[in-house]
Amino acid sequence: MTRSTDRKPLHLNAFLMSVGHHEAAWRLPESPASGGTDIEHYKNLARIAERGRLDSLFLADSPVLMGDPGRRPGSKLEPTVLLTALAGVTEHIGLIATASTSYNEPYNLARRFASVDHISGGRAGWNIVTTAGAEAARNFGLDDTPLHRERYLRAAEFVDVATKLWDSWADDAVLADKDLGVHAQADKVRSIDHRGAYFRVDGPLNVQRSPQGYPLLVQAGSSEDGKDFAARYAEAVFTAQQTLEEAIAFYQDVKQRAIGFGRDPEGVKILPGIVPVIGDTEAQALELDAELDRLIRPEYAKRQLAKTLRLDPDTLDLDAELPGDIPSEDEIEGAKSRFTLIVELARRERLTVRQLIGRLGGGRGHRTFAGTAEQVADTIEHWYDAGAADGFNIMPAVLPSGLELFVDRVVPILQERGLFRNEYTGRTLREHYGLPRPANRLFEAAPTGGDHLGIALADAR
Amino acid sequence: MTRSTDRKPLHLNAFLMSVGHHEAAWRLPESPASGGTDIEHYKNLARIAERGRLDSLFLADSPVLMGDPGRRPGSKLEPTVLLTALAGVTEHIGLIATASTSYNEPYNLARRFASVDHISGGRAGWNIVTTAGAEAARNFGLDDTPLHRERYLRAAEFVDVATKLWDSWADDAVLADKDLGVHAQADKVRSIDHRGAYFRVDGPLNVQRSPQGYPLLVQAGSSEDGKDFAARYAEAVFTAQQTLEEAIAFYQDVKQRAIGFGRDPEGVKILPGIVPVIGDTEAQALELDAELDRLIRPEYAKRQLAKTLRLDPDTLDLDAELPGDIPSEDEIEGAKSRFTLIVELARRERLTVRQLIGRLGGGRGHRTFAGTAEQVADTIEHWYDAGAADGFNIMPAVLPSGLELFVDRVVPILQERGLFRNEYTGRTLREHYGLPRPANRLFEAAPTGGDHLGIALADAR
Repeated sequence: MTRSTDRKPLHLNAFLMSVGHHEAAWRLPESPASGGTDIEHYKNLARIAERGRLDSLFLADSPVLMGDPGRRPGSKLEPTVLLTALAGVTEHIGLIATASTSYNEPYNLARRFASVDHISGGRAGWNIVTTAGAEAARNFGLDDTPLHRERYLRAAEFVDVATKLWDSWADDAVLADKDLGVHAQADKVRSIDHRGAYFRVDGPLNVQRSPQGYPLLVQAGSSEDGKDFAARYAEAVFTAQQTLEEAIAFYQDVKQRAIGFGRDPEGVKILPGIVPVIGDTEAQALELDAELDRLIRPEYAKRQLAKTLRLDPDTLDLDAELPGDIPSEDEIEGAKSRFTLIVELARRERLTVRQLIGRLGGGRGHRTFAGTAEQVADTIEHWYDAGAADGFNIMPAVLPSGLELFVDRVVPILQERGLFRNEYTGRTLREHYGLPRPANRLFEAAPTGGDHLGIALADAR
Repeated sequence: MTRSTDRKPLHLNAFLMSVGHHEAAWRLPESPASGGTDIEHYKNLARIAERGRLDSLFLADSPVLMGDPGRRPGSKLEPTVLLTALAGVTEHIGLIATASTSYNEPYNLARRFASVDHISGGRAGWNIVTTAGAEAARNFGLDDTPLHRERYLRAAEFVDVATKLWDSWADDAVLADKDLGVHAQADKVRSIDHRGAYFRVDGPLNVQRSPQGYPLLVQAGSSEDGKDFAARYAEAVFTAQQTLEEAIAFYQDVKQRAIGFGRDPEGVKILPGIVPVIGDTEAQALELDAELDRLIRPEYAKRQLAKTLRLDPDTLDLDAELPGDIPSEDEIEGAKSRFTLIVELARRERLTVRQLIGRLGGGRGHRTFAGTAEQVADTIEHWYDAGAADGFNIMPAVLPSGLELFVDRVVPILQERGLFRNEYTGRTLREHYGLPRPANRLFEAAPTGGDHLGIALADAR
């Protein structure tokens, strides 16, 4: 399983969560008061990530005020707009925004991502989410979230429509022949005439094909439906894995599923999340981690945990383990894999509710690793060499300091070990990840090895 | 009617239409081949407009590929994303994007505009459109455009929901008390629980109140429904007026309607469009205008005109006047005021179809004025002093040159005459237009003189 003889560089993504992934990060002195809406804060983060030659940065999203705004910053900038602002202060780094297939129209979203890809010179990525939770549904005319399976069916059709819209202009459609007076060639801009269960979209898009063809397609759900979706459509997968063994199993599972869809497994990059808490010494890192956990207000956090687990908060005792009668993943319609991960973590390590809150406050299910820069690099190398990852989703507990420490201390070690690039060699986000530019399904022959996205073409041609 | 004794500065907006408002502009040597998707082209335009101290720039939009992409550039960047990119290269100028109330969800759009307002430091404006045309409808699951009246009813409810969402955070909601561990104050972030004919939205928004409170609300429809909508909600109105008399009548009509809704007529600024074609001499300007008209391919343009007028193209003879049997505005569901303006222009001036195409190719119904910089300044001053306008929507026939000529030659004349600012004095878009920041309807008492937006508050409190 070791890759020491065949060592390719790994990939690194900076997951920028407001003032940090730890829910109490905002209480530290360095943290800007309105970090979530502070564009200068985000521009600073983007510049730091690019200084570290990271492949990409990433913004999570849900169209709802998440959690209790009293407890931690709830106000955030909309990701496609925020990414565009960050494109203006960077030159190389990839820019990945989350957007929901349940609460958008494909025509609108396809336009925005194509526009960001044009504006950024081919650096846009789309993290495709189906958006769990009744609160979000109630901002869009619904009483409750659509069924999990329904959401994934709609998501699949959404991606089909969006990719057809991105293909509705041939790459060489624009002639701009000033003498003849012909702008685009008539036979190179085409309606898509999509008629499906969820959408009817005639097209064509009103944006010509963008530098990358499509934005990079990213996925982060780890339920069974989520893994199938990732294996079928995604080019990069963000995932929460607590142990090396689970990470290896997930990695192999998704790659196998991709092969099952007729795809090259190299075409889907798997990036587990890691929350690095970095100190000059291990003891200092552990102390910072503990200090952050002490800043969590347990009464807030208990309420949030109870909601995630569909429990009455009064049934939770801070100094006892979780109660025995928790519903199974099958019975819930929310973020299934997050639910199971939390319950399994609590059971496996026999954590009290208070300890569990500490673990979740840091990484919300992602692996927190507190140590020196050398130790963080070691664990990254270890997971990478063990075949658990193609790269990592770096989720600093505190921003900007956690990202600065990672970029200035961990990245140089990875570079020295030949595990990470010293300079950007590509121009586009796909080039950073070593992924091919997608062929145009409406105007070009399918690439050898079949249609890499595995999308039925019958109604698109 | 003259204002010479009470001369306030006028307002100027740059309407940036790809490579220019003249449909043949792209055929000139200066025009970039992919102007509509070329971010550097737009950044250059924004910098020129700001150099001229203009109040704002403006982007039109429809979620559909407009017209024949063979005839002129059809590929464009999505406006909220494009504005965000332009915010990054400017410091003062207001940024107005068009977005449709028929093909968006209020929660999504409210977020994006709030985000642009934060990112730009209070420079965002929203041109509210209901989007005519079956082609757009067919990108969103419909067979045809909703009825004109339906679209306006939905638009009114949309604005009501959006403004409530922008008010769902009190201006002082974010406390960020690090010692207490309280981020936002619980009683200053509120659900809106909107239940209406078109929307159900619980809220609150996940973006805290932005520098301007709301983006500036702009409107550009001139049908009866459109004028009522403008009078009720809009703070700035773009309008197409061919003659001074019509412009004065429109100006007085909208101001009177605003008074009828209990608003201060000064709170709605009216900006007719003007297409300035500027030369060193009048003859040179007229020659440029004629040269542009010669570059229009009449067979393309005839097809487009027939579509707008709901006629069979074969019934149009390039060298004859319009046929007599054109339907009336009441019978159509499209852009009613544009339709009537075209028919009236053709009838009044007894234009042949070829001549009409030339006039429309330049300004699409807006007034084209070819002359020297002095003559352009004279006509602006004349219309302004006659009470036909609070300012002007500048629609250069060719970009960037038409905007450069306006900024470098016409603006200095207006400044010299005391008609236009020499420097920006405000920070926000509303400050440029001399408009008040809206009070928060959910957390503050209504301002004296009543609720300036005239929106029913019953279900919002």
